[in-house]
Amino acid sequence: MTSTLTTHGTATTPAEHTPREGAFGNATELRCRECGSTIPLGAHYACLECFGPLEVAYEYPAITREQIEAGPRNIWRYAALLPVPADVASFPNTEPGLTRLVRAGNLAAELGLSTLWVKDDSGNPTHSFKDRVVAVALTAARELGFQVLACPSTGNLANAVAAAAARAGIRSVVLVPQDLEQQKIITTAVYGGTLVAVEGTYDDVNRLASEIAGEEEGWAFVNVNVRPYYAEGSKTLAYEIAEQLGWRLPDQIVVPVASGAQLVKIDKGIRELIDLGLVEDKPVKIYGAQATGCAPVATAFKEGHDVVAPVRPATLAKSLAIGNPADGPYVLDVCRRTGGTVEDVTDEQVVDGIALLARTEGIFGETAGGVTIATLQKLIETGQLDPSLETVVINSGDGLKTLDAVAGRVGPKATIKPTYEAFTEAGLA
Amino acid sequence: MTSTLTTHGTATTPAEHTPREGAFGNATELRCRECGSTIPLGAHYACLECFGPLEVAYEYPAITREQIEAGPRNIWRYAALLPVPADVASFPNTEPGLTRLVRAGNLAAELGLSTLWVKDDSGNPTHSFKDRVVAVALTAARELGFQVLACPSTGNLANAVAAAAARAGIRSVVLVPQDLEQQKIITTAVYGGTLVAVEGTYDDVNRLASEIAGEEEGWAFVNVNVRPYYAEGSKTLAYEIAEQLGWRLPDQIVVPVASGAQLVKIDKGIRELIDLGLVEDKPVKIYGAQATGCAPVATAFKEGHDVVAPVRPATLAKSLAIGNPADGPYVLDVCRRTGGTVEDVTDEQVVDGIALLARTEGIFGETAGGVTIATLQKLIETGQLDPSLETVVINSGDGLKTLDAVAGRVGPKATIKPTYEAFTEAGLA
Repeated sequence: MTSTLTTHGTATTPAEHTPREGAFGNATELRCRECGSTIPLGAHYACLECFGPLEVAYEYPAITREQIEAGPRNIWRYAALLPVPADVASFPNTEPGLTRLVRAGNLAAELGLSTLWVKDDSGNPTHSFKDRVVAVALTAARELGFQVLACPSTGNLANAVAAAAARAGIRSVVLVPQDLEQQKIITTAVYGGTLVAVEGTYDDVNRLASEIAGEEEGWAFVNVNVRPYYAEGSKTLAYEIAEQLGWRLPDQIVVPVASGAQLVKIDKGIRELIDLGLVEDKPVKIYGAQATGCAPVATAFKEGHDVVAPVRPATLAKSLAIGNPADGPYVLDVCRRTGGTVEDVTDEQVVDGIALLARTEGIFGETAGGVTIATLQKLIETGQLDPSLETVVINSGDGLKTLDAVAGRVGPKATIKPTYEAFTEAGLA
Repeated sequence: MTSTLTTHGTATTPAEHTPREGAFGNATELRCRECGSTIPLGAHYACLECFGPLEVAYEYPAITREQIEAGPRNIWRYAALLPVPADVASFPNTEPGLTRLVRAGNLAAELGLSTLWVKDDSGNPTHSFKDRVVAVALTAARELGFQVLACPSTGNLANAVAAAAARAGIRSVVLVPQDLEQQKIITTAVYGGTLVAVEGTYDDVNRLASEIAGEEEGWAFVNVNVRPYYAEGSKTLAYEIAEQLGWRLPDQIVVPVASGAQLVKIDKGIRELIDLGLVEDKPVKIYGAQATGCAPVATAFKEGHDVVAPVRPATLAKSLAIGNPADGPYVLDVCRRTGGTVEDVTDEQVVDGIALLARTEGIFGETAGGVTIATLQKLIETGQLDPSLETVVINSGDGLKTLDAVAGRVGPKATIKPTYEAFTEAGLA
């Protein structure tokens, strides 16, 4: 097959495909986040001038709360704010979004916070926020004429891509490290796409994905060659939080940081809502949460650096274990500009965070959720976060996918014979 | 402690507690499903006259679609149709419901159906329909003055009770068989309640639960002494299906059968919607789905019996493995009255059903979902279900909880070295 991707990260759309009118909604072009150069909408992901990352730019018409509220009960209610066509909801997709925003009174009381909400993205179709970004990537891939949806992944993204492709009736190719846990293999392979185990580390898998993206025409790697579209999906977290609060913004949000894109896009979403007059303007502090075993952004923040030095991850929070985060510098920008910080917590604190959220609010988050809850706690204890302000914390995934993290820690209070006498003697009454 | 439960299955409310005005909304009394005797609302679950099972009766005021649509984005939008107070949404609970109704075009095409929808209850907070019934039971328990939320369970109910109690800030006691899978132990214990492993079978656990319910004042066993309220939660499946179809009914619904309560309550919900004028009256055929290894209701249906002979369960669909289903006779009534049937499928077909749903629609159901999908297929192949009619099938739980069912069946297509050459040589391009 002919290569459609140049070595410096731009790609033509698949041969002989011209996107239809309105394929990208109110999006107008791709813009370099470094030098500001623009390029027409297409399968590009790096600037032609400076190789910087590209981001979708828009010209929004007037958009009202009523228009949004009249939309579907999923992320497509915000279609006008995404790089998707107006008829996006009519194509089969997993319909993610509009997950619970839970008023967390018990957890707030334990942490000494006045008002706390948990945005629980474990309620998405494959139980992580990745369904949001994959739904937008799938749409872009279809409009750009790609025939295969692909990704390198170690878990949540693999699930989301395989499920979305199955639902859309297209082929998926998911590349994972060979030593991945059997649980994550099964929950991806069950969707019937092409799951490939690669002998090597996740970094090896990533490199292979980029190589394939450069060779195979018609393959959309969601987090590589359609990444600018993909990343926009995370803006919907901000839209939903604002709408679910009754069209207003909280004072501060704590967000897990892997590549950093989720945090950066939440900030972008907030600014769009303000610009469009959908919410009243107010300052919102954004905080980043990392595991100490993979905390390149927190380290850079604390040391006052503008760049992020890569690290070799060593944490049980594997869904956040990106040692060289693409959006790291932008996370530093956002947190510094808004008055937030970036903090990190140990694996022991991560497990404590999972248990704390479960015990107080009945929400079983994955390790990334544990990172974020534990970071919230640390931010309060160290005086970095004002407990009197209204706070939102993101739970981005599901504890069912990372059972091993708590397996050694929780279990039955007692094992008894099946009699009431045994029950009372065990002190359980 | 004094006993508040008599041996024939009625109970006083906990000592010195009088439910507040409006505690049960539009519910008026409990009515025996066998002899029609009534009894005031309280912690009763068996008829004083004939020991028959009790069910909640209502006097509904006029209820409009607009009132419902203006409600919360969870089952409490239907509060006026449930035995709960008007302010129910203001108390902490897991906020289940309004799960996806997915237009399943790919699966319909494979099965030769004209129009098929999947009601995907894996999107509930603890990923099964049990969150619906537990939310209503929790509310009744609170209004009746109970202090502990309890249940015997082998999985989904255990998760739902432990999570709901944590969120509500009350104690939970969950009894499970000692040999339960480690996965289900962890996903219950993580919520911090009292999880008790019992040396014995699920039947032994059940007997112990009834004994404890008779001894401990203030303990609400959701599926024992507040069962009439608990079971009403399943009506919300019917309400949501109708609302999500634009306030109209489908032609036929395929429902998994464990105790049978879910199926019976879906039928009840449909009739209520018709009676209230919320949907146009039309016939809706209700079909029951069981695993052959535990098919007492399907057997009775096929043999033309009115009673259900108990069986000893032997199926991998453990969440449906109730050998002596309480609502079995009522399932027979509903399916015969509406023109549906009850069918069963082998464990091999169950696994095929899980894989089929995942591959075609990107939905990973638990074994109960596999039972229902496989039964749908069998109903079509045997001419019991008209493929030209609009059909809804229920996926009541999540594949992440029953990974073992498909573990031997799915996996990577290939294992390769991390090079593009290896990728193409493996025939993956």
